[in-house]
Amino acid sequence: MILINGESKAHIEISDRGFQYGDGLFETIEVRDDQPVFLERHLARLNSGCRRLHIPCPDAELLRLEAKELCRRWHTHRRAVLKIIVTRGSGGRGYRQPDAIHPTRVLSLHPYPDYPETYSERGVVARFCATRLGLNPALAGIKHLNRLEQVMARAEWSEPDIQEGLMLDVNDYVIEGTMTNLFYVKNNSLYTAELVQSGVAGIMRGIITALSVDHGLPVIEHRFSKDELLSADEAFVCNSIIGVWPIKQIETAHFSVGPVTQRIQSWLDKFARNDCMEAG
Amino acid sequence: MILINGESKAHIEISDRGFQYGDGLFETIEVRDDQPVFLERHLARLNSGCRRLHIPCPDAELLRLEAKELCRRWHTHRRAVLKIIVTRGSGGRGYRQPDAIHPTRVLSLHPYPDYPETYSERGVVARFCATRLGLNPALAGIKHLNRLEQVMARAEWSEPDIQEGLMLDVNDYVIEGTMTNLFYVKNNSLYTAELVQSGVAGIMRGIITALSVDHGLPVIEHRFSKDELLSADEAFVCNSIIGVWPIKQIETAHFSVGPVTQRIQSWLDKFARNDCMEAG
Repeated sequence: MILINGESKAHIEISDRGFQYGDGLFETIEVRDDQPVFLERHLARLNSGCRRLHIPCPDAELLRLEAKELCRRWHTHRRAVLKIIVTRGSGGRGYRQPDAIHPTRVLSLHPYPDYPETYSERGVVARFCATRLGLNPALAGIKHLNRLEQVMARAEWSEPDIQEGLMLDVNDYVIEGTMTNLFYVKNNSLYTAELVQSGVAGIMRGIITALSVDHGLPVIEHRFSKDELLSADEAFVCNSIIGVWPIKQIETAHFSVGPVTQRIQSWLDKFARNDCMEAG
Repeated sequence: MILINGESKAHIEISDRGFQYGDGLFETIEVRDDQPVFLERHLARLNSGCRRLHIPCPDAELLRLEAKELCRRWHTHRRAVLKIIVTRGSGGRGYRQPDAIHPTRVLSLHPYPDYPETYSERGVVARFCATRLGLNPALAGIKHLNRLEQVMARAEWSEPDIQEGLMLDVNDYVIEGTMTNLFYVKNNSLYTAELVQSGVAGIMRGIITALSVDHGLPVIEHRFSKDELLSADEAFVCNSIIGVWPIKQIETAHFSVGPVTQRIQSWLDKFARNDCMEAG
């Protein structure tokens, strides 16, 4: 089920700059009981990403209405995934953008992926990817449509018992998973990569940071190596669709699902329920 | 005029991974007297780019036939631009590619841009862009669809008397123009950036390198700074559509259109005419 600029259709002009250059952004949002979860945060990030790329962001109220309309129409699904793509639209001359930008907005609903419940409870297995994240402060943090690095990294393994690949940047610092942000726990503090040169500043990452600080758990954004990660007390990956998956194994290193990760999961559950109640 | 997988149409499924992730490559080819110029070289680069991204490349003979069919249908235009896009097609789960990849091929013809003749003869004005090229050896050299850096750089200026923006990488080395490769001449040698961490290895760059070596002009690929470029005897930018544009000015530094650049232009003219005759 797809809305392109408010119309039900499934095709886009090939001249769209999203297709030509990856000139746009996206959001991937969990839908629970017909409600897009943390919608306002996603819309705020979309807006800030558009500002950084100088794309006029579609009106938040319009996106809100279309998102809710789409969810209502598909209400037989208890859980789903809403994807919002905004591109710089068509036109311009080569890389040069047109004088008047008419952005394209695409909202689409997808089945919720059938991840086993055990992933959240008992943890997942991760590996390190050989594909590195390039460095570019101008694009770091933005959930833009230039995702070849993630595609290349995800293509490195097909074993079904490995659930996520961890990506290093070209300087060998650990940054994130192919589709997730990464945290680790050491001596009752929470650590995650600073995303100033690469990476996507995930909504779930932001919420976890805020909740942890609120609950008195220090959160440190810094640069860290594989070895620092492997000597952690606990580690987990997160995104808006999966929530939090504890990591039980990275290659040959084993971790137990620890108390800090479990505490964060319970803060998050409560917080998400409140968000749904407010939205409903 | 557009052919998508052999059919005349102008729209692509939004599920195409080219739109979702910029998961694909492209070629931009000059068409002269109904003939795509240097077509075999473009098809060879497309093939090698596909191999690097693990996309099965559409059959060269098929692309050749479709390219020529498109040019014939549009034969009223003496000159045109043929663009070929190949993506990983639709399917897969998130970044993960589908088990069976059915690539999408899009061939489209566009009017030749109306650049004044003076650009080739008397040179162009260039500026340095603030937007940097990120570093990633896995993607360096490939003409892939992740082009946000170029879009951002090209959006930095709108003065019509500046024809190209030169891009540095995040380490301050000069790499290329937003839509061109860059060469400079110093003491009768030709210099250009090594494209091991960023940049696009242009067809015209390859031809100029080969022709220069054939004619006894040494070509050195290396890392160079703004200052080294600004102290050059001559400089020029090139691509498959514009050929060679001498640079007459970079910000406040002035250059004259020198004998080495002119010699390269004449080698290139002759070489392109031969290619057209062979293709015709």
